[in-house]
Amino acid sequence: MRRADPVEISAVDLSAIENRLLAMPPVAALALRMAGFDGERLTLDAPLDANANDRGCAFGGSLASLMTLAGWALVNAHLDMARVRAHVYVADSEIAYRTPLYADLRASAWLAEQAALESFFESLRRHGRGQLHVCSAIASPDGSNAAESRSRFVAIQQNESRADGVPATAC
Amino acid sequence: MRRADPVEISAVDLSAIENRLLAMPPVAALALRMAGFDGERLTLDAPLDANANDRGCAFGGSLASLMTLAGWALVNAHLDMARVRAHVYVADSEIAYRTPLYADLRASAWLAEQAALESFFESLRRHGRGQLHVCSAIASPDGSNAAESRSRFVAIQQNESRADGVPATAC
Repeated sequence: MRRADPVEISAVDLSAIENRLLAMPPVAALALRMAGFDGERLTLDAPLDANANDRGCAFGGSLASLMTLAGWALVNAHLDMARVRAHVYVADSEIAYRTPLYADLRASAWLAEQAALESFFESLRRHGRGQLHVCSAIASPDGSNAAESRSRFVAIQQNESRADGVPATAC
Repeated sequence: MRRADPVEISAVDLSAIENRLLAMPPVAALALRMAGFDGERLTLDAPLDANANDRGCAFGGSLASLMTLAGWALVNAHLDMARVRAHVYVADSEIAYRTPLYADLRASAWLAEQAALESFFESLRRHGRGQLHVCSAIASPDGSNAAESRSRFVAIQQNESRADGVPATAC
C-alpha cells in the first residue's frame, strides 16, 4: 500500500475545502471546522450545541451529515494530492447509529480500501469518472463509535457533461 | 391491512411534532414545515435555498436529514394515533442519492410494512420497546425520486430506563 508523502499532503488546501463546505447554508449551520488530514484520515469537528436534538444529545442528521462531509472532504483531499480536478458526489450511504452522543462531534473518514486509489485515478483518466468507498465514524468519549457509515462517492472530471443520469447529488 | 380512521388521525398533533423538530437547532436550519399526514404517509417540505450545496442543488445531508425526520415524525404520528407515549430513535439507515434536485424538497415517509404496526405495539406493550422499518423518498419535479432511504426506528416507552445499550441516538 502506497502512503501519501509530505509533498502530496502539502498540495491539500484544507482551508479551501473547509471554505467550500461552509459556503453551503445547511453546512454552515453545523458550525463544523476542519480538524486535520494525515494523508489517509480526514477529521471534521462540530460543537454539540449547534447539533443537539430535543434530548440534548447529537442529532442523527448532524451525525450523518458530518460523516458524509468528512468523506466528501477526504475524496477532495485525495484529488488535491494527485492534482486532479473533479466534482465529487455522494451516491449512497449506509449509516448505523450506535449510542447517543452527549459530547462535541468528531467525524473521521478513511478509504475502505487504500489500494482502490489506483483504479480510481485510472478510471478518472480513462473514463472521466471514478468511484471510491469511504468509511466514516464519530467517536464517543468512551472510545467506542457513536455512529458509523460507509458511503460511495463518485468523482466526475470537471470538463465533462453531467447530463447523463449518473448519480450526481453533490454531498 | 387496517387503515387509520379519522378519529385516530385527529389524535395526531402535527403542529406539536413540527414544533419538536424545529426546537432542534440543526433542524431549524433546514427551515422545514409539516406538509401533511393521511394516516399512512407523512410529508415534510423544506425550501431549496436553505438546503443548497455549492452547485446550487440540494445538499445530500439535507436530503438525508429530511427523509430521516419524516420517518421519525411518521413513527411519532403512529404513536399519537394509538395514544402511546414513547421516545423514538433512528437506529440505522440506507440512503441512495439518485439525481440532483434543483427544486424545493418534499420528503415523504411511509411504513415498509403497514402490517408491522400490530407487532410493533405488541412489543411496546410486552417489552417496553418496538421497532419499525420506514421508507422515505424525496421527489423530483419529473416524478422520479431524487433520493430514497430505508431506516429502522426504535421506540422506547418513556418510563423505561435507557441505560441498556439499545440503539438510542434520537433522530
